[in-house]
Amino acid sequence: MDIVFGIDIGGTDIKIGKFYGNELVYKTSIKTDKEDNGSKIFTQVFSIIDELKGEDNLIGIGIGVPGPVLNNAIVSSKNLGWDKVDVLQIVKEKYPNVAIKILNDANAAALGEMVKGGAKGYNNFIFITLGTGIGGGIVINGEVVEGNTGSAGEIGHIRVGFNNERLCKCGLYDCVEQYSSATGIVKTANNLRIGRKTKLNEIEVTAKNVFDLAKIGDEVALEAVNNFIEKLATALAAVTNTINPEVIVVGGGVSKAGDFLIERLEKRFNELCFFTVRGTKFALAKLGNDAGMYGTNYIVRKMINENKCL
Amino acid sequence: MDIVFGIDIGGTDIKIGKFYGNELVYKTSIKTDKEDNGSKIFTQVFSIIDELKGEDNLIGIGIGVPGPVLNNAIVSSKNLGWDKVDVLQIVKEKYPNVAIKILNDANAAALGEMVKGGAKGYNNFIFITLGTGIGGGIVINGEVVEGNTGSAGEIGHIRVGFNNERLCKCGLYDCVEQYSSATGIVKTANNLRIGRKTKLNEIEVTAKNVFDLAKIGDEVALEAVNNFIEKLATALAAVTNTINPEVIVVGGGVSKAGDFLIERLEKRFNELCFFTVRGTKFALAKLGNDAGMYGTNYIVRKMINENKCL
Repeated sequence: MDIVFGIDIGGTDIKIGKFYGNELVYKTSIKTDKEDNGSKIFTQVFSIIDELKGEDNLIGIGIGVPGPVLNNAIVSSKNLGWDKVDVLQIVKEKYPNVAIKILNDANAAALGEMVKGGAKGYNNFIFITLGTGIGGGIVINGEVVEGNTGSAGEIGHIRVGFNNERLCKCGLYDCVEQYSSATGIVKTANNLRIGRKTKLNEIEVTAKNVFDLAKIGDEVALEAVNNFIEKLATALAAVTNTINPEVIVVGGGVSKAGDFLIERLEKRFNELCFFTVRGTKFALAKLGNDAGMYGTNYIVRKMINENKCL
Repeated sequence: MDIVFGIDIGGTDIKIGKFYGNELVYKTSIKTDKEDNGSKIFTQVFSIIDELKGEDNLIGIGIGVPGPVLNNAIVSSKNLGWDKVDVLQIVKEKYPNVAIKILNDANAAALGEMVKGGAKGYNNFIFITLGTGIGGGIVINGEVVEGNTGSAGEIGHIRVGFNNERLCKCGLYDCVEQYSSATGIVKTANNLRIGRKTKLNEIEVTAKNVFDLAKIGDEVALEAVNNFIEKLATALAAVTNTINPEVIVVGGGVSKAGDFLIERLEKRFNELCFFTVRGTKFALAKLGNDAGMYGTNYIVRKMINENKCL
């Protein structure tokens, strides 16, 4: 049977899925070996592919990577220790007769959510992941926008403050990621709880705990959530004013706060966006860590199908 | 000879161009008659088309309008007094055997600049017009992004302040249009000049005068320009982080400030955008008021060519 591997290389884990058509028939995951500037990652990936391939006919490999992708080939990724690594060339040498597509990991996850998740049925959407940081993907007319240097969708670094309040890892001040991520809300909560009456002074301050306390009415936790929402709604309004999508799909660890988060976000967003894009839908992502595998499988199969028609 | 009319309906003027291929062979302009909720505009346009058509064979009409366009048909435009006017239907009734495309005016101008202006040679760019307000168009892979409700490219309403300092006509506070437009910089200059030593207290405060005085070193004027740049660079960084274009093309009346504006904008932009999109090019728009005609001619001819291939 014809198979494609949908692979998601992350800074912590490598996730590999074996697909018959759009069906994920087997998946596995290993710890990413980042030694020697991430040069061992390919050996890891190839050995799993060869093991899982079995008697099937390998027709495609899609790979999501945590960094910008230039010309479907060159990847620089601080997370993996890669500096201008020609991923396409390396994979092609090992599997010369196979369709290969390299994609940014957030873009891959966006496509995965389109195929089978929160963006199913939509062709124009913003995908945003709220985790330790903020990642994003933009899909227009069913195609992910990769951008001139493979960097489209860097929603996390939209500026949402003018007082140089929080320095971001990227070197800029007041990126939305500094406020509306798991680390961002913890920082806010830690600032707000000082000298105030709140359960946040009694338990560990994590994003989950802040949201949980806000849900049961802890005032300081609620203030922290409101700050998170204010900054995120501002950034999403900017992106929505720009590309006017059908839906905004919210994923990542923080999205586990669920409807409590989405309802507040949607309300404030509608107060901050331009009136012609008011009513843009919101949805929760559904695939979690599997999204990247579904997305890379999808795009490499699409590539194969389009070439077949030529 | 086969001809297309590229038309740009504005709140003040209607501009009509007659095209042989991509060549503008004749152009004219009349004052927009906005009486009776803009219902007379069609009579105006039709009579000019019929007059200019002559012995040529009319194959297409492209129309740019100042408002969002739904499904290539329905237009609401406060500027023209239109509320959900089915422009496609009205034009089709009069010219049943002709290809017709209705497009937002800023989007049309963006395409015009791609065909023959500041974005020539680029397929991925942001077009921004700095006039009384701020308009914009987004082009990805050579296609203008129209958006789910015809409202993509509303860059002017990106939020660039958190103190509810300036109320925008749209009802929101601190839209970039309130700072980085002709009216925006006049407002800033009027705030800054009070009680200070500046030529701005001796002449009429217009956008042109503020830029001209800044160029010859008037400190207060320079402060006003810097505020204009700070807000605009912030908004453009947000848009660029999102879609990662090759170039940002700047048009509109204020762009007459030329390299003095562009150099400062580019410098501050590069300090504010995410590092992976640093180095995005800047260019001045070239077609001025003709951009919309070129853009509407281009898109309707493209539509005709694509249909021919089916």
